[in-house]
Amino acid sequence: MADILHRIAVKTTDIAAVYRTLVTLEGLKAWWTEDTSGEPGKAGGVIAFRFGAGGFDMQVTELVSPGLVQWKVVAGEPQWIGSVITWQLKETDGYTVILFKHQGWKEATEFMHHCSTKWAIFLMSLKDLIEKGKGAPTPRHKDR
Amino acid sequence: MADILHRIAVKTTDIAAVYRTLVTLEGLKAWWTEDTSGEPGKAGGVIAFRFGAGGFDMQVTELVSPGLVQWKVVAGEPQWIGSVITWQLKETDGYTVILFKHQGWKEATEFMHHCSTKWAIFLMSLKDLIEKGKGAPTPRHKDR
Repeated sequence: MADILHRIAVKTTDIAAVYRTLVTLEGLKAWWTEDTSGEPGKAGGVIAFRFGAGGFDMQVTELVSPGLVQWKVVAGEPQWIGSVITWQLKETDGYTVILFKHQGWKEATEFMHHCSTKWAIFLMSLKDLIEKGKGAPTPRHKDR
Repeated sequence: MADILHRIAVKTTDIAAVYRTLVTLEGLKAWWTEDTSGEPGKAGGVIAFRFGAGGFDMQVTELVSPGLVQWKVVAGEPQWIGSVITWQLKETDGYTVILFKHQGWKEATEFMHHCSTKWAIFLMSLKDLIEKGKGAPTPRHKDR
């Protein structure tokens, strides 16, 4: 098993605003992919994230405002199915810190390496959304 | 044990140019930290990377032009000591792909999460250095 782990500090004490970027369609569309639908704000709800032809369906497995969000991948890219994405938020020294985990990869494939880098890029998009008012979601983000 | 893994595709078929950003002081200074000294181009050589007050000394443990570079951390931040950084380069479809591994973390600490995100940011600096002629090394890079 292999994990993708990241940490990013967003310059805001408004932890609820960061939480909203994870639990509302408006928030998710503004930093990850504009083609997002479903029920991100409801435990047990399913969110459909689409990136052109492909994408993922995630079930919301934990939702504790404003500090914890967890999703389980239930459909989409085979390597992602069954993996779990956890967001932990905490306020510290004038920042809202996000601890991000994408766990449960069966193998450390080249695609997993790619996803690790892309998650960092999208976390920066989320940071820019809060700090500058504008993220860079798919398809607007520059392809890396 | 936990690993940081990344993959980035640099739009160039000049794999040797990408390799040079890892094995020359000029290259390393242009994407990671301007305060770099030592012998990056010699197996067994030691490279001193400094970021303001802190930093790392790495010993070059593998050097196979133009596809493989490996460093072992021999001094600096305690969590990094003994860990190993591996760079694998390959040309594919008009890109030079970098597979990056920072392995041998004893624990998945919050600092490790932070380093994972920062490595992605510096890999983008390396990509920009090749593609646009300008990276964003410390201290010029925007603090994330």
